[in-house]
Amino acid sequence: MRVSVIGGSSVPPETAAVAEELGERLANRGHAVVCGGLGGVMEAVCRGAREAGGETVGILPTDRRSDANPHVTVPIATGMGHARNALVAMNGDAAVAVDGSHGTLSEIGTALAHGRAVAGLDTHDVAGVEPVGSPAEAVDYVEDAVR
Amino acid sequence: MRVSVIGGSSVPPETAAVAEELGERLANRGHAVVCGGLGGVMEAVCRGAREAGGETVGILPTDRRSDANPHVTVPIATGMGHARNALVAMNGDAAVAVDGSHGTLSEIGTALAHGRAVAGLDTHDVAGVEPVGSPAEAVDYVEDAVR
Amino acid sequence: MRVSVIGGSSVPPETAAVAEELGERLANRGHAVVCGGLGGVMEAVCRGAREAGGETVGILPTDRRSDANPHVTVPIATGMGHARNALVAMNGDAAVAVDGSHGTLSEIGTALAHGRAVAGLDTHDVAGVEPVGSPAEAVDYVEDAVR
Amino acid sequence: MRVSVIGGSSVPPETAAVAEELGERLANRGHAVVCGGLGGVMEAVCRGAREAGGETVGILPTDRRSDANPHVTVPIATGMGHARNALVAMNGDAAVAVDGSHGTLSEIGTALAHGRAVAGLDTHDVAGVEPVGSPAEAVDYVEDAVR
Repeated sequence: MRVSVIGGSSVPPETAAVAEELGERLANRGHAVVCGGLGGVMEAVCRGAREAGGETVGILPTDRRSDANPHVTVPIATGMGHARNALVAMNGDAAVAVDGSHGTLSEIGTALAHGRAVAGLDTHDVAGVEPVGSPAEAVDYVEDAVR
Repeated sequence: MRVSVIGGSSVPPETAAVAEELGERLANRGHAVVCGGLGGVMEAVCRGAREAGGETVGILPTDRRSDANPHVTVPIATGMGHARNALVAMNGDAAVAVDGSHGTLSEIGTALAHGRAVAGLDTHDVAGVEPVGSPAEAVDYVEDAVR
Repeated sequence: MRVSVIGGSSVPPETAAVAEELGERLANRGHAVVCGGLGGVMEAVCRGAREAGGETVGILPTDRRSDANPHVTVPIATGMGHARNALVAMNGDAAVAVDGSHGTLSEIGTALAHGRAVAGLDTHDVAGVEPVGSPAEAVDYVEDAVR
Repeated sequence: MRVSVIGGSSVPPETAAVAEELGERLANRGHAVVCGGLGGVMEAVCRGAREAGGETVGILPTDRRSDANPHVTVPIATGMGHARNALVAMNGDAAVAVDGSHGTLSEIGTALAHGRAVAGLDTHDVAGVEPVGSPAEAVDYVEDAVR
């Protein structure tokens, strides 16, 4: 399946490490990653997924594919700014939120509005988001939810 | 100014009454309302604003202006589904959230991401949203924040 | 009804005069104008419509309402760049194209794809666009088409 | 590079054959295809590209990835209807139009507005579109233009 990974564009190293492990685990289970294509959690999850040979779709706020981080295999330019958040959530079968600020909150809301299961790693405490303790639990949760 | 009012599309009568009062107060202070143009909170706030002679912009998820509730003075069709939520938040100088579910959460997130002040009437408890106790307090809060 | 007016953002004075007359005639017949909200044909048609007391909706490519020309009564920010062209076409019951370049071509295509009648004043020679000789003829054509 | 291929969603067999050959030639030269992801020219060009092992990105008007034709390797749901045409044009380094109606016209306009070179196979006669006589010539044209 394809999993939306959403989170802050500027994060401390320990959060990046969590996102990277998440990407690697998703790819190892055969799942593609879709994200916003920029830095922070987005870059880290793509790096991890690429290390495991996975596909990484980056749906960018700008109109230039070259703005994608170097670990995105399929960059999609939108030129739509924050409105592209809706596309990130829509293009996964489920979502994992990692940390994150207001943009992440809007993606969580959109993912839930589209009926997607959302696992949360140290993110907003919002009804509908399942708090999980590790990347491994996040992968288990979204796999179970989609099955 | 223009105030984004966001909230559930299907709400109990007491919530609708709150939204209607909010619309009336905003219009009486000379503010236009922008919302998603459909039912529930959106319809109630437009009804209230119209009773006070205000302007009501409805940014619709569908591609038909005729889907707007009857109290919208300027319907804007988008055909963009949930992605139109970003436009509702972007088109106000500040926002008030009333009740609401996942779509509202995504609008709150987008409003905060755009740096808008957000007052919350019985809505999601999210960092950045100022909880207020009445429509009058909501109007005061957004007026102060924009000033 | 509401008429989409599409055309170049930088035009010679004689083209601006045509657009201004078009705006005035549309408003005098009770029609609102919707356009892209910026300069050139967009600004001229809004100026003409305002002189006759009409409503002018400007659907902007940027995320700032303040980017609208001063004759727009209802600015709508989108932050969507060229993708907002689809909204300009969708939000009129019919369209008039005045002069114009590539952006105009995309709006003509979208208007036709939405089944809108399109009158053309000195614009692209495209199947489906009715060439007209004056603003008065353009107004007659779109009124007949919608009736 | 990535080439946007735009054209009608319902075409006669000879047009589909042209699109299929185009897809095969693009893939054989190492280019990815981006299109609207549905039927007609879109399906044929994807089929051809896949026969040659190429990548095919389909940017869909609907909010369901499963609406993509079976030869799309990376489906992108948008739920944006015709407004997604802007994304198809934006996501290629150049474009080839094959036959096509109003939607194609809007994509040509957007591609030109984004400064992309556009080759035309039996399509709208519009300033800025280079008419070519065969898929091979189309590939040569876009390769030269991007170089």
